[in-house]
Amino acid sequence: MLTYFLRVNKISAKSSSLTQVGSWNPITLPQIPNLRRFLWSYHHPEKQRRISSGQKESDNMSEALNREAFRQAVVNTLERRLFYIPSFKIYRGVAGLYDYGPPGCAVKSNVLAYWRQHFVLEENMLEVDCPCVTPEVVLKASGHVDKFTDLMVKDEKTGNCFRADHLLKDFCKDKLEREPNLDPKKQAELRHVLAVLDDLSAEELGAKLKEYAITAPDTKNPLSDPYPFNLMFQTSIGPSGTLPGYMRPETAQGIFVNFKDLYYYNGSKLPFAAAQIGQAFRNEISPRQGLLRVREFTLAEIEHFVDPEDKSHPKFTEVANLEFLMFPREDQVSGESARKIPIGQAVAQGIVNNETLGYFIGRVYLFLTNLGIDRDRLRFRQHLANEMAHYAADCWDAEIECSFGWIECVGIADRSAYDLRAHTDKSGVALVAHEKLPEPIEVEKLVIAPVKKELGLAFKGNQRMIVEALESMDEKEALELKATLESKGEAEFKVCTLDKVVTIKSNMVTISKETKKEHQKVFTPSVIEPSFGIGRIIYCLYEHSFYTRPSRDGDEQLNVFRFPPLVAPIKCTVFPLVQNQQYEDVAKQIARSLTAAGISHKIDITGTSIGKRYARTDELGVPFAITVDSTTSVTVRERDSKQQIRVNVDEVATVIKEVTEGLSTWGDVLWKYPTHTA
Amino acid sequence: MLTYFLRVNKISAKSSSLTQVGSWNPITLPQIPNLRRFLWSYHHPEKQRRISSGQKESDNMSEALNREAFRQAVVNTLERRLFYIPSFKIYRGVAGLYDYGPPGCAVKSNVLAYWRQHFVLEENMLEVDCPCVTPEVVLKASGHVDKFTDLMVKDEKTGNCFRADHLLKDFCKDKLEREPNLDPKKQAELRHVLAVLDDLSAEELGAKLKEYAITAPDTKNPLSDPYPFNLMFQTSIGPSGTLPGYMRPETAQGIFVNFKDLYYYNGSKLPFAAAQIGQAFRNEISPRQGLLRVREFTLAEIEHFVDPEDKSHPKFTEVANLEFLMFPREDQVSGESARKIPIGQAVAQGIVNNETLGYFIGRVYLFLTNLGIDRDRLRFRQHLANEMAHYAADCWDAEIECSFGWIECVGIADRSAYDLRAHTDKSGVALVAHEKLPEPIEVEKLVIAPVKKELGLAFKGNQRMIVEALESMDEKEALELKATLESKGEAEFKVCTLDKVVTIKSNMVTISKETKKEHQKVFTPSVIEPSFGIGRIIYCLYEHSFYTRPSRDGDEQLNVFRFPPLVAPIKCTVFPLVQNQQYEDVAKQIARSLTAAGISHKIDITGTSIGKRYARTDELGVPFAITVDSTTSVTVRERDSKQQIRVNVDEVATVIKEVTEGLSTWGDVLWKYPTHTA
Repeated sequence: MLTYFLRVNKISAKSSSLTQVGSWNPITLPQIPNLRRFLWSYHHPEKQRRISSGQKESDNMSEALNREAFRQAVVNTLERRLFYIPSFKIYRGVAGLYDYGPPGCAVKSNVLAYWRQHFVLEENMLEVDCPCVTPEVVLKASGHVDKFTDLMVKDEKTGNCFRADHLLKDFCKDKLEREPNLDPKKQAELRHVLAVLDDLSAEELGAKLKEYAITAPDTKNPLSDPYPFNLMFQTSIGPSGTLPGYMRPETAQGIFVNFKDLYYYNGSKLPFAAAQIGQAFRNEISPRQGLLRVREFTLAEIEHFVDPEDKSHPKFTEVANLEFLMFPREDQVSGESARKIPIGQAVAQGIVNNETLGYFIGRVYLFLTNLGIDRDRLRFRQHLANEMAHYAADCWDAEIECSFGWIECVGIADRSAYDLRAHTDKSGVALVAHEKLPEPIEVEKLVIAPVKKELGLAFKGNQRMIVEALESMDEKEALELKATLESKGEAEFKVCTLDKVVTIKSNMVTISKETKKEHQKVFTPSVIEPSFGIGRIIYCLYEHSFYTRPSRDGDEQLNVFRFPPLVAPIKCTVFPLVQNQQYEDVAKQIARSLTAAGISHKIDITGTSIGKRYARTDELGVPFAITVDSTTSVTVRERDSKQQIRVNVDEVATVIKEVTEGLSTWGDVLWKYPTHTA
Repeated sequence: MLTYFLRVNKISAKSSSLTQVGSWNPITLPQIPNLRRFLWSYHHPEKQRRISSGQKESDNMSEALNREAFRQAVVNTLERRLFYIPSFKIYRGVAGLYDYGPPGCAVKSNVLAYWRQHFVLEENMLEVDCPCVTPEVVLKASGHVDKFTDLMVKDEKTGNCFRADHLLKDFCKDKLEREPNLDPKKQAELRHVLAVLDDLSAEELGAKLKEYAITAPDTKNPLSDPYPFNLMFQTSIGPSGTLPGYMRPETAQGIFVNFKDLYYYNGSKLPFAAAQIGQAFRNEISPRQGLLRVREFTLAEIEHFVDPEDKSHPKFTEVANLEFLMFPREDQVSGESARKIPIGQAVAQGIVNNETLGYFIGRVYLFLTNLGIDRDRLRFRQHLANEMAHYAADCWDAEIECSFGWIECVGIADRSAYDLRAHTDKSGVALVAHEKLPEPIEVEKLVIAPVKKELGLAFKGNQRMIVEALESMDEKEALELKATLESKGEAEFKVCTLDKVVTIKSNMVTISKETKKEHQKVFTPSVIEPSFGIGRIIYCLYEHSFYTRPSRDGDEQLNVFRFPPLVAPIKCTVFPLVQNQQYEDVAKQIARSLTAAGISHKIDITGTSIGKRYARTDELGVPFAITVDSTTSVTVRERDSKQQIRVNVDEVATVIKEVTEGLSTWGDVLWKYPTHTA
């Protein structure tokens, strides 16, 4: 059940919430990265290094503070410049809901556009767009209605709600941190609780809370026993109130239910991938960690359907030589660290289950690092046996390290045929693929022949549903039904689509075994699913892009986001050096050319000093600034190097387009145009 | 109330549902466009013309049939090629929910990308992205909780629900159509009912249903009295069940509540516009008309904030000479038809209230026609006095004619200061702008000075909310409070943010009038709101783009969508003429160059005849096809003209990029490259 839970709750449930030191994994893992580097990289962003572990408790505390200070610096900048804002702020906000303001919205739309380019266009994926409102039956089939829960406790007096595992975790961590002289046996016990936290049942969790006398954190009131709370937002579809629905907790189901049409659209050929970008909703019990655990978020999901007997990938060689941090299951269990392995080798050695999974891991690596994620703070961690569902073949998370620890940002799972089978069973529609065999083969085959006339007489309007249900029986069910009909003359038969048990008589269906020539094999495809939490990726990108540097006169630290042009919310600013009509006209002319070239830009004609104007836009991560200091040529400045070149007015939009669209590098244009010294 | 309703329910409520002949407007309008042209344009798409009206009833009937046949042809093609699909089809679907399949999803993302380019980038708008889940207080302030309703009746036996106005409308229309010899007095009565349908109260509607003995359409059972049904999907935020929320019915509120931050982000300068693209939700009682009335849809909304005393627009001259069909209020009332008016003239003559509104009307016209909307089937219709809210200054709908009639696809409204005031009142946060006056002026000013100490003693934690509420009183309220305090020593005072009435004593606040020098004026900006129903625009675009032409041997009609490259779901196909390795390799090489150039394409290496392959992709609206018929040069075919040119293999991706991105026209490349004759 629990492994299943982890499966369903792919992005933001338990497995990923436990991203803090020592607790996020049921076995002992190397301590979270030395925290000093957060402080350090804050001041020396270009020269990150790792300090070897082994520091004392007091170091731990001060580093936690530094990490906190770094995060505050980033978050303050983000909120002040409206990258994001707590939603409905004038009404005091709602926990777990955030707005993206103008720069954040632009970053998000750049990330999504690149995702489409990198995945959908590159692989010719079939993109779909399905509604968020989802009827119950779909999420019943997927398991979400029954299993998509967290264990909750209530303050018995105020009714305030808490996640039971969070309370227990906080208690254990707190005690370990604050009482270094605690009895070693007690310490071991608390560490064990943290390790097995994810595996505890409601009863076990309740017992532990009682044993440690844990009360409500704010009021100290007693707590209820833990009970499951479903994380889906529930609603009702239509006016009658009889059709329950939910806001989808993931976008994947919209693809699975359309498998049949998509397969046909693809010329009835495997493999193919479908993709979807859209909102997903999880009514978290107690949202925390800012943008990392929210109640509404954007997912981008790929479902790559493949023959289970052939998971090779034609383009695997294109990624095989990529080398990056991987953290295989065995290394986690034996207490080692993540290490660089070429993905080709990982597949060849069987560390990664198959080529297609390996191909996507490689593509995800390229996607994230091209966005600006630091390759040294990105690792691919394999799920442990107890994290994976029984049906999954293999599963890897792209984890990005930020001030909250290692955060699961992309899940890449080989989910075998589970999802398509679940919907086949529930809907009675066979979600299968057909493949022509090179040679026809003789098979003994079960033939189910419903007698439509008799079924029509007996069941009238429901006839079709019963015929479909009979035809979609698997061999075992069919033989059981046959046996019962032969012995008793009738049998109870459950028709899922009617949600009803009907009585089938022996004259209503014939079931027999026949030897047939088969020209094609029919099978349920496996699905390999890369699933991207866009908001999490963006938040980590913010942290990885943020640095400070002293102002020219050295009296303050200025904030900079070193976004690559691909991601930058605004590609370019245009500043008339001084307030005069001529320069303003040139600035407006340049702005028009930029608009025509599709380059997002901002024109700033305030009389503020040029240094202040640079600082303002560095803080938004704008990569290039055009300063109009003559009517014929202008200065172009690059954000991070602060190097400047001179370019003619009528050429400048083209130059900016080239460097922002990656056709030239800054190095190329530096070489081509005269440099400018102030 | 009703006008208010129309205001709130901007896109898809009553005003826009009544798009069918003779009923959609409370006064007599010219009959819907001659319907013969649907049939006609179906066969002769390039030569649309209008046939003068005045046909007989029987013509009307046959034209309705033709219109229906045309729609069926379009819809069949759309569904068969997965432009859209009823959602959750394997579970029998849910009314009013649709998926966009691969080509539909691509069209949608092209339309949205162009919307961003045409509006957000061009006008430097501040784009935001807010959650769909919205707490009740926000929608209470906006009026949706109380007023966003349709009148519903229930089948008293089955519980099935219907929109009361739909039943009455259908009854009247049906009777008028089927009984041409009906007593003229009765005819006039029914026409009158259709005309005033939108203005009927629940009681009046109920009385009419009774008078005409209208029963449930399917069962003929008696109906309940009409009662209001709120169209928002309700849910509950957080685990406690105490915070009601809704799925937003529009995206605009997310912008209004952020006004203060956005204004600051814009350097505290007016005018500026904010924009948002996102999902909106309306739990329609009985969705109909396919993609036109759905329960979840994508809106793109702009809120342009402007000084109420200066609604000029600096770029108005850029659109002033545009001339297109406008349908001013007066012409509707006097029974005339829409006519072409240059927008500059419409503003100068006061037909359109102001330049900013006029500017947006012009920009919307350009947006829609650049997408491929036929300019002769697009009109801007002004709201009648009884359609507009009391506070609105002016309102125009971009209506597009399709087989369902004239459909409201974009609403462009000057909503004055209504929305910002509503949120100021409810939240106690002043959503206002400040402007420096050229000269300071002396004003007699009300000074409200809450005595925080006394309020703190009396109200403890609620002090801040009460202080804010006192400070945000308008003059009238403040003077009333002052009078009551002076006469009685205390007064009841409603604090909205607390949802509570408190007793204020005279020592808790001083209210006085003082003469002050004012250096700035403080005011609530007006908002001009263009609001786009993306799904409706796309559906109309499908109808306007669809035509058929005979196959080469003339034995069947082939479907074509004449999408401009901007909109086309796939820009280009690559076909090896015959199945051979060499051609296939060239095709793959071209495909790689297209991917690198960011051009979406499809490669078809099936052995199907080239004619069939063309027909398949014409039906998807792919504008260009590359046929690989040699290893050095290839044939490029344009979809509508079927003209072909020869281009070198290594040049072809560049040529396709140029014509799809609008840098060259097909005419340009025709002139530049040798034509190819099969």
